[in-house]
Amino acid sequence: MSFTPIRILPDKSVEILDQTLLPQVERHLSLRSVAQVTEAIRSLRVRGAPLLGLTGACGLAIAGEERGTDAETLKQAAAELKATRPTAVDLGAMIDESLEAVGAASKTRTARKTALWKFAQQALTRQRERDMALANHGSSLPGLEGAVLTHCNTGGLATGGVGTALAVLAETWRIGRLQRCYVTETRPLLQGARLTMWELEALGISATLLPDTAAASLIASGRVNAVMTGADRIVANGDGANKIGTYGLAVVAARHGVPFYLAAPTSTFDTTTPSGKAIPIEFRGDEEVGGFGEERWSPKSGSTYNPAFDVTPAELITRIITERGVLQPPYEPAIAALTASNG
Amino acid sequence: MSFTPIRILPDKSVEILDQTLLPQVERHLSLRSVAQVTEAIRSLRVRGAPLLGLTGACGLAIAGEERGTDAETLKQAAAELKATRPTAVDLGAMIDESLEAVGAASKTRTARKTALWKFAQQALTRQRERDMALANHGSSLPGLEGAVLTHCNTGGLATGGVGTALAVLAETWRIGRLQRCYVTETRPLLQGARLTMWELEALGISATLLPDTAAASLIASGRVNAVMTGADRIVANGDGANKIGTYGLAVVAARHGVPFYLAAPTSTFDTTTPSGKAIPIEFRGDEEVGGFGEERWSPKSGSTYNPAFDVTPAELITRIITERGVLQPPYEPAIAALTASNG
Repeated sequence: MSFTPIRILPDKSVEILDQTLLPQVERHLSLRSVAQVTEAIRSLRVRGAPLLGLTGACGLAIAGEERGTDAETLKQAAAELKATRPTAVDLGAMIDESLEAVGAASKTRTARKTALWKFAQQALTRQRERDMALANHGSSLPGLEGAVLTHCNTGGLATGGVGTALAVLAETWRIGRLQRCYVTETRPLLQGARLTMWELEALGISATLLPDTAAASLIASGRVNAVMTGADRIVANGDGANKIGTYGLAVVAARHGVPFYLAAPTSTFDTTTPSGKAIPIEFRGDEEVGGFGEERWSPKSGSTYNPAFDVTPAELITRIITERGVLQPPYEPAIAALTASNG
Repeated sequence: MSFTPIRILPDKSVEILDQTLLPQVERHLSLRSVAQVTEAIRSLRVRGAPLLGLTGACGLAIAGEERGTDAETLKQAAAELKATRPTAVDLGAMIDESLEAVGAASKTRTARKTALWKFAQQALTRQRERDMALANHGSSLPGLEGAVLTHCNTGGLATGGVGTALAVLAETWRIGRLQRCYVTETRPLLQGARLTMWELEALGISATLLPDTAAASLIASGRVNAVMTGADRIVANGDGANKIGTYGLAVVAARHGVPFYLAAPTSTFDTTTPSGKAIPIEFRGDEEVGGFGEERWSPKSGSTYNPAFDVTPAELITRIITERGVLQPPYEPAIAALTASNG
């Protein structure tokens, strides 16, 4: 059992899984115009930083087919694609890389179109390989032979490949170590309830959903052998920012001697920031709290406290899993060595 | 500003605030028959253990008016009232006490009706006085001069008086110590988002709502000076069971040196149970997780982990606030002394 979040079809269209309809409806959309791609990104039919990058690369290849491949035309399409989610770093970076690739190609229209599609396809393949390398590195860690608690969505729906933390769990399930995934609902946006539970079902992995409030007593009960989440940014000293709620899980896991793992690609490391205290935290709107979608549960008066991320200090992180291997404390030298080998 | 969860009107009807419509609609219902009372309890228009007890006493007084006061008639009405929520201890106990009170009254119909109403009114007054005594004892504790984080609903909507933990906060607000309440949504039943936010608005207290996932980073940020919750059962060694999610808050509060207070009436103490490990925990249905009301966010497959309560060990509880005073560690002798003075 499996699913494909994004793929390039032989007819030069791009097929995406519409994530806004999950988990109720599994609909695939075929994208053939820049307008369709920008609509899909804007409407959050695709989301997750790496998947947005892949969608951007595919969008530029579609632009080449639809509008032509001269530099000015592609630059205009690139600007339209980037403007959909201006703060999504991967989206802009991947589009810029694609423009470079086509710039290096020969001047014929066919060669330029081919270069755009080739770049997009390689990006998809690279993502999948990187995710699988990370999954393999993580799959032998202690604790993953039993039940593992995870938070938010870190699967193929987030990366466009097979995922990060969830890919590790899928691999440990495949090799017969993992017995069950426990999944937090992940308020306020409910990515665990909506997306992770759907992915685990698609992969045939035994899954149990819990309210975020029940995670601490679940860990205290001895039912979970490890906690594993993704990370949005890991800084020089090993502190990691991730979806709001991660820090509380790490504190409780440490109290009960349960290993706490972060799984993240090396692109997540930011060695220019010395410690977690310096990570800027995005605060989001009032409408996400006290309701979901159209539904309101709370009076409209009163303020909300709605940070998108929290920071887990390095001392609470048992191991950091990357596509190049598993890091162990002390993280400062381990991260320095890992990122030095980048350049 | 204020509100009245239940009161006896001069025309011998009982007015309740319909909690199922909160926070959107503030509707009061006038109850004049046993059928109306049982419907209100069954439909959760009133909830919270102490308030259910008060409603039971009022229901028996209504039965006396509606059906007569002979022993057999009242026994039948008592059985109907108790059957609405068979596990609600306070409901059954209060109805039994009311039957005793009427049994001790003279045989005239007027005297018996008067005894039933008098018992109900005294129960309401006693509840209010007990809640206010608890609030007064708690209001001078350290940490309450700033911002306090609370969980679930522990106000007048729960007790029928002015509440427990929330009454302490209301009193500290009244005397000018408290600056702001932070309120968790309290998944899965969202009592914080629905009821506590409504009560704080009705009382004119500055309130900020947060997803349960954001509580740990809020505490870590230094924005809260204390955490205060209610308790459903406190056992001989001071371990306390309360709404799911309480334990995680206590663990994080301890890590950051933030005082963690439990507020509970002495009727909550159960000295026949030696420690929290022996407290039976109620597990609730799948339909509460991965959705709310009619709304579903999660695939229907997969299991859920949905305990209603968790247990906070005594070592994480800074003080226990009761209507007879504030207990401090070591709790074992303090609780023994407090409960001995009961009998």
